[in-house]
Amino acid sequence: MKSLTEYLTFNTKTRRAFVNITPDVEKLIEKSKIKEGLCLVNAMHITASVFINDNESGLHNDYEKWLEKLAPHAPINQYQHNNTGEDNADAHLKRQVMGREVVVALTSGKLDFGPWEQIFYGEFDGRRNKRVLVKIIGE
Amino acid sequence: MKSLTEYLTFNTKTRRAFVNITPDVEKLIEKSKIKEGLCLVNAMHITASVFINDNESGLHNDYEKWLEKLAPHAPINQYQHNNTGEDNADAHLKRQVMGREVVVALTSGKLDFGPWEQIFYGEFDGRRNKRVLVKIIGE
Amino acid sequence: MKSLTEYLTFNTKTRRAFVNITPDVEKLIEKSKIKEGLCLVNAMHITASVFINDNESGLHNDYEKWLEKLAPHAPINQYQHNNTGEDNADAHLKRQVMGREVVVALTSGKLDFGPWEQIFYGEFDGRRNKRVLVKIIGE
Repeated sequence: MKSLTEYLTFNTKTRRAFVNITPDVEKLIEKSKIKEGLCLVNAMHITASVFINDNESGLHNDYEKWLEKLAPHAPINQYQHNNTGEDNADAHLKRQVMGREVVVALTSGKLDFGPWEQIFYGEFDGRRNKRVLVKIIGE
Repeated sequence: MKSLTEYLTFNTKTRRAFVNITPDVEKLIEKSKIKEGLCLVNAMHITASVFINDNESGLHNDYEKWLEKLAPHAPINQYQHNNTGEDNADAHLKRQVMGREVVVALTSGKLDFGPWEQIFYGEFDGRRNKRVLVKIIGE
Repeated sequence: MKSLTEYLTFNTKTRRAFVNITPDVEKLIEKSKIKEGLCLVNAMHITASVFINDNESGLHNDYEKWLEKLAPHAPINQYQHNNTGEDNADAHLKRQVMGREVVVALTSGKLDFGPWEQIFYGEFDGRRNKRVLVKIIGE
C-alpha cells in the first residue's frame, strides 16, 4: 500500500466563499502515482466544508442564500457559542449541512467522477489561513 | 491490497425516489473476495444521494416531505441556478442534506452493519440514466 | 495492509446527547499500530451520528436548538414513521443533517487533525445501548 499526505491552504477575502479545488487534488493524485485507491479530502477547520457539486456560480449563490436561511449569521446573540467572544456559530452549523469531507475513488490513476462532479472548499468564516487535508491510499 | 470498481445504473420513473441498493452492494462485496477493508458507495451525479437509513416507507415519505420543506422545488425562479434553463436547483440542495456517499466497513467478508442499516440511492431529479460508483479496497 | 475493527457502546441518560469520543478513537489507533491509513468511525444505528466539530458546550446547545427547529420531535403524529409505534422519526431526520460517519486520516500513527477537530457521538434517541464502529486500515 502506498500513501500520500498533503495540505492545501486557503485565505478567502470574504467571510463566505466556494473555491473549486479539483485541479489541486488532481495534481496530488498524479504526484502520488497511485492507480487504484481512495482519496480523502477534508477541511481541517470546523467552520469550513469540502463537498462535491456543480461548478456553476448561480448554484453557489443559491447555496449561500439557502444556508443563510437555514442558519442565519445575525443576530449573533441567538447562539450560545457566540458568548465565548466568537461570532461564527452559524459557520459551525452551515458546515454540518455541507459536510466536512469527501471520499473519492481513484481508478486507473484518475478521480473516478461523474460528468459534473467537482470538489469545492466551502468557507463560512474566512479571511484567515485555513487548511485542507488530502490523503491518498492505494496501489 | 485488492480492489473492485463497479457502476450501478438507475432510471427512476418519478422525479424523486429512494431505492434500496443494499443487495447490489452485497453482491459486489462477494464478487470482490475482499474480507477486510472499506467500501465506498457514491452518487456520480450531483442531484442524487447515497445514504444509510431505515427501510421503512413511512420514513421515506417523511424524508420527501421534510426535504421539500427545507428546499422547495417550486417556484423554480427562486433559484439562480434555474436561470441556466434547468429546473433542478432544489435537487442540488436536497442532495447536500442527504449526502453524496457512504463509506462502510467490510469485516470477515460482509458489510459490518448495525441491525437496521440499509444503503439507499436517493434520487432528486430522475427519469434518466444516472450512475452510482462502488469501490472496494482491502485484503 | 493491516486493519483493526472495534465497537464502542453508548447508553446516554437523555434522549439526545453529544459525547466526545476522540480519546476512545485515539486509543484504538495506538492499538492498531497503523502509521499511515484511514480510520472510519460510524454510528451503527440510524438515529445517531458521528461527526467532527468543536468541543464547546455552548455550540452543542446551539446544535440541539437548531436541529429541533429543522426537525421537531413533537407533535409526533406529524411523521408517518411514527405510525409504526415509534416516536423517533425526528431522530432519523436529525441524523441526516449531522451525518452517519467520519473518515479521518492517520499520519505518522496519529489522527491528522486541525487545531479544533474533535470526534463526537451524536445521540438523538438514546437511553438504550447503541454501538459505534471503528475500522482502521493502512500500514
